[in-house]
Amino acid sequence: MSDLLAALTPVALAAPPSGIVEVMNYGRERPGMIPLWAGEGDLATPAVVREAAARSLAAGETFYTWQRGIPDLRAALARHHARLYGGDVSAERFFVTGSGMQSIQIALTAVAGPGDEVIVPTPSWPNFAAAVGVRGARAVDVPMEFGATGWSLDLDRLAAAVTPATKAIFVNSPCNPTGWTASRGDLLALLDLARRHGLWIVADEVYGRFVWDGSVRAPSFHDVAAPDEKVIFVNTFSKNWAMTGWRIGWIEAPPALGQVIENLIQYSTSGVAVFLQRGAIAALEEGEDFLAHQISRIAESRTLLCDALAATGRARFVPPPGAFYLFFAVEGENDTAELGLRLVDEANIGLAPGTAFGAAGAGWLRLCFARGPDEMREATRRLVGWLERR
Amino acid sequence: MSDLLAALTPVALAAPPSGIVEVMNYGRERPGMIPLWAGEGDLATPAVVREAAARSLAAGETFYTWQRGIPDLRAALARHHARLYGGDVSAERFFVTGSGMQSIQIALTAVAGPGDEVIVPTPSWPNFAAAVGVRGARAVDVPMEFGATGWSLDLDRLAAAVTPATKAIFVNSPCNPTGWTASRGDLLALLDLARRHGLWIVADEVYGRFVWDGSVRAPSFHDVAAPDEKVIFVNTFSKNWAMTGWRIGWIEAPPALGQVIENLIQYSTSGVAVFLQRGAIAALEEGEDFLAHQISRIAESRTLLCDALAATGRARFVPPPGAFYLFFAVEGENDTAELGLRLVDEANIGLAPGTAFGAAGAGWLRLCFARGPDEMREATRRLVGWLERR
Repeated sequence: MSDLLAALTPVALAAPPSGIVEVMNYGRERPGMIPLWAGEGDLATPAVVREAAARSLAAGETFYTWQRGIPDLRAALARHHARLYGGDVSAERFFVTGSGMQSIQIALTAVAGPGDEVIVPTPSWPNFAAAVGVRGARAVDVPMEFGATGWSLDLDRLAAAVTPATKAIFVNSPCNPTGWTASRGDLLALLDLARRHGLWIVADEVYGRFVWDGSVRAPSFHDVAAPDEKVIFVNTFSKNWAMTGWRIGWIEAPPALGQVIENLIQYSTSGVAVFLQRGAIAALEEGEDFLAHQISRIAESRTLLCDALAATGRARFVPPPGAFYLFFAVEGENDTAELGLRLVDEANIGLAPGTAFGAAGAGWLRLCFARGPDEMREATRRLVGWLERR
Repeated sequence: MSDLLAALTPVALAAPPSGIVEVMNYGRERPGMIPLWAGEGDLATPAVVREAAARSLAAGETFYTWQRGIPDLRAALARHHARLYGGDVSAERFFVTGSGMQSIQIALTAVAGPGDEVIVPTPSWPNFAAAVGVRGARAVDVPMEFGATGWSLDLDRLAAAVTPATKAIFVNSPCNPTGWTASRGDLLALLDLARRHGLWIVADEVYGRFVWDGSVRAPSFHDVAAPDEKVIFVNTFSKNWAMTGWRIGWIEAPPALGQVIENLIQYSTSGVAVFLQRGAIAALEEGEDFLAHQISRIAESRTLLCDALAATGRARFVPPPGAFYLFFAVEGENDTAELGLRLVDEANIGLAPGTAFGAAGAGWLRLCFARGPDEMREATRRLVGWLERR
């Protein structure tokens, strides 16, 4: 290690490179490559959202603004939540952030520090455990189980992971990468566990609208927790409205945390551009048609992919109930980090290796099917062809 | 304290509310108020910058991108630095961030953690010490001195503050709020001290173009340090190009730190919108005329403010050599937090209390003169009138 690196903090040195970025960098420039590695689709942000931002920019809304987000957006978030979860929702519960990732970072800063533990069911999005590490805390993996009906969370195993150092449980449902979607009963049990031990729940329900049983949304902690419980929701505009590149998200939390969250925003990025927030308002208020269109084309892509892959008999998976990823294993392929690179070379498709999602993901691959049916049909053809050539 | 707050981390609870935001919230809605409290001017971002972003947005550049910033912007930053500081500059030294604030946060995460100390000459921008606290480290104030020639940094006093726990020295020159501008000799002495103790320098030269002796720029650590020294530059597009509301900045650091900085960006905000980066390229490549226009009108405002205030004999200051703030004291007014609120009521001008800038700022006020001469003339009239009525 160079002298410069040796002079950095242990926490900074421990932050791992993203295992997804590695394969992206390997395959990014390949002609004809179909990229299914990242958690984003193929559609640009809808015009109604882009135009709202462009109007604000043209009008010169380029000055500092409220650290918690502009009042119009916080009010729009409250209305959106009231429509989706029912009840009377206060705008004081909402805090605009510079991405779902920043929402997580701020939530973690609030609830866990050096010596603390945060329980993370795995496989899980790798950035969560890494962000726990950046706070000097420890992510405690609780492996989920794969069986005939798909992925499940063993609540006894999770309860056994609680120690005096535990501060929070991270619950990502629907789950990236597995598609596991907590039932109302699961959520009640998790909440009960958290209550008994005085733990926070950090609820990542970013994929809540992407469920494949015909429901409008997945079960949510909004359905079971009281407004003033120790639940912090971390969310993003990225997935519902194809705004991955915008870097804008939100936190929903009890208003008692308001000043602390404002301060933590102040000292990390000091707010979000007003013109981005105008786009976000348009997404919430005028984006439902786009979201419905996205859901219907992704549903079609999911079905054709799962059907074709099941027909080969050479991939291990159960069609995911939620989110827009297929997490699957291929017999005899245990080193999926290397397999991700080979699939770039041998099938011209880009998949994320399961190793990127924690030890429980070793041997698995993640494929994002948030794309149109035509391209997904071609990607499926390539993957099935590769499986059959093996 | 509520049970919810009691369940948060000490670090989150210790993050202080911004002392500037308090007076802003007090006066924000007053009719006719002239706001001189924040570090921003009255001009919107220049059209050439806004239009570059709007074109990118219209073209649908709304997807995930490189964590370190798009290659075009990193190359533009390298060219900009070569023009300003000379020499051959590698694009690998640059990392795009979601604000100068985030640059500071990431630099601190890299160099200081729990138990560590960071030396901060004060008065200083309060967010720096607060961000040190969010990392669990301790900001060690070294008060600067005000005398007949203005503010100065006592290097012996600074050297005496170094302990075995010291990891870095924060150097903000030209300084917000005092306008202190390090000479080449100061910088050499600071660098020498850092070298002797193996410390990092976090160099905030955000106001480097705002100097009032006719120079193109202030002396910089670029003039005295080697490219691979332990110097991390934290910077922003906010001030030069009136982009305060955009939240985009950059880090310049030895390329050996590249993967660590990329990882820390990944786990805090995961990059910056491509369309914002297109605007930033336009700022660097086509923004020089706007910057020259800003500098000339701010210079005029500085002169008329300082002349009128000096003529009253009732304010204590020396015209600042750099940055765009007047930091001044008024005899008999020691509680400037309360005075900031009174000036809203009694003079309809908004100033930041010196207490917001650390203990060394008690008894002082900060006035931002980055506005056109006409408005500054009116603000000056109000302030002088208030001083003379006292």
